[in-house]
Amino acid sequence: MTDFEEIEKARERLRKYFLPTPAVRSEVLSDTASLPVWLKLELLQPTGSFKVRPSMNGMLANLEQARAKGVVTSSSGNFAQGAAYAAKRLGVDLQVVMMKGASEFKRKRTEALGATVVLCEDTFKDRWDTTYRIEKEEQRLLIHPYDSVHTMGGDGTIGLELLEQIEGEFCAVVPISGGGLISGIATAIKHKRPGCRVIGVQPAANGSMRKSLDAGERVTVTPGPTLADALLIAQPGERTFEVVRRLVDEVVAVDEDEIRAAVKLLAEEQKLVVEGGGAVGVAALRGGKVAAGGLPVVCILSGGNILPSDLAAILAA
Amino acid sequence: MTDFEEIEKARERLRKYFLPTPAVRSEVLSDTASLPVWLKLELLQPTGSFKVRPSMNGMLANLEQARAKGVVTSSSGNFAQGAAYAAKRLGVDLQVVMMKGASEFKRKRTEALGATVVLCEDTFKDRWDTTYRIEKEEQRLLIHPYDSVHTMGGDGTIGLELLEQIEGEFCAVVPISGGGLISGIATAIKHKRPGCRVIGVQPAANGSMRKSLDAGERVTVTPGPTLADALLIAQPGERTFEVVRRLVDEVVAVDEDEIRAAVKLLAEEQKLVVEGGGAVGVAALRGGKVAAGGLPVVCILSGGNILPSDLAAILAA
Repeated sequence: MTDFEEIEKARERLRKYFLPTPAVRSEVLSDTASLPVWLKLELLQPTGSFKVRPSMNGMLANLEQARAKGVVTSSSGNFAQGAAYAAKRLGVDLQVVMMKGASEFKRKRTEALGATVVLCEDTFKDRWDTTYRIEKEEQRLLIHPYDSVHTMGGDGTIGLELLEQIEGEFCAVVPISGGGLISGIATAIKHKRPGCRVIGVQPAANGSMRKSLDAGERVTVTPGPTLADALLIAQPGERTFEVVRRLVDEVVAVDEDEIRAAVKLLAEEQKLVVEGGGAVGVAALRGGKVAAGGLPVVCILSGGNILPSDLAAILAA
Repeated sequence: MTDFEEIEKARERLRKYFLPTPAVRSEVLSDTASLPVWLKLELLQPTGSFKVRPSMNGMLANLEQARAKGVVTSSSGNFAQGAAYAAKRLGVDLQVVMMKGASEFKRKRTEALGATVVLCEDTFKDRWDTTYRIEKEEQRLLIHPYDSVHTMGGDGTIGLELLEQIEGEFCAVVPISGGGLISGIATAIKHKRPGCRVIGVQPAANGSMRKSLDAGERVTVTPGPTLADALLIAQPGERTFEVVRRLVDEVVAVDEDEIRAAVKLLAEEQKLVVEGGGAVGVAALRGGKVAAGGLPVVCILSGGNILPSDLAAILAA
């Protein structure tokens, strides 16, 4: 099965669980950018981010094992909540490996959905070691937060929806962390409408994909602090790196001031609560970093899980 | 022409200017209320509220006069901005009569859209005296913010969209100020699907419609301060009062704590920036004040123009 076929399959699997999210025209961004700008509202998904799609798809693709043995995953935030939601809805036992230093806010939200959080040391290495150990010891189904065909398949359903919601060619602007979201969307869009463009955006504090592309191989970085906490990753996925190299037209970086300004603009003018990681596309657009080739732009607002106190501070500034 | 026919006409007029706003399922509200809850996202309209619909419809219905002589209206907030947007888009000169004490924030936003703001004394009487004087002296087209067939017609297009977006009977929960929005929506919905329910919500600080219904005639109240500043009005409209009396099933009140809690919940859980006046439906639902008769509920989130500093304070609390 090709990656694209898995996306179509994911769409069938997810159809009865989720309605398509709206894609809306943004007047204020269109005016500023002097071209049509659309926003894909993934922040409206249950748990406030697109992550319900890939996690639910992973469980549905192997539902017998998931139900019999349980599922294990690893994440510091949005994927944890998305997976906890999917597990609850499907009657699946879920363990999520999180670093001790991960946000208590996100941990509590994950636990509130019924998942068991397993704490590990504050390194990506220990997080993965712990995850793989639990997978082996308990024969749980491992759901990878970005680097698997089912995860990319679930993510790619966003691309299929965009193809129905927007006529003609467009330029999708997509946040990058491990690369699952952009890989799925690029696979769907480029397969059906090759003239579309796909541009990835990372916070400058975490240039792992940009640096890997420059090096021609996956490099490991030490991510710095950023408001886009959903986009903190040491290294792109193996599978996703290959897809990005093949299909993504460009990867650009935005700085912290640009991210904060985008969050503020989206709340004040567009009336949407968008987290830093979800706002990087709008930040890139406003910073003149999106070479759309004259096409209408679609920014994927991937999530809205900003700390209320952080949003309050941005609004008050 | 009946009120319903005017709504259909309005829809034709507005079709090339606005896309339908999304109606989305709210998981968090559905879970709490134990019935399906939908949200109609009027806050995504240009200028952040539904008011672009009625003001644009009023101008399009009499476009020759509007262009030749200009338009005058009167409002302290959302209608002013909506009308200024419509006027700009249609190449119409607009004067908006506002009280001296009206929010500077809203005045500046109205002026930024190209409208001329005419200041008057801080009474509804002087506001209307000034508006009617300008109408007469300059032969401008008067666009009434709630009490006219064209305004109700534009407002009613929301009802037509809901009938397409939601299958079967439902219960619409609608904010009430002068009554234009609920009159338009009730006219559309009850005409096409009489089994639907329509429930109006006012802030307790302004019970003008509730008190008028109790008295069997329009009474004048002195509205108190409320976070729902878009719903401040001394008296229901003449035309709208008759429609509400005839078609609306119930009108309920919510207090300030309930409004603030609804704004907070919508921002934190639903990722939407909703102003007090737009959140009263959700406040009523959470307060157990919506007798939906077992039907799915649709809350009209009429606008998102909350002061950023007010939202910051609510989020930080």
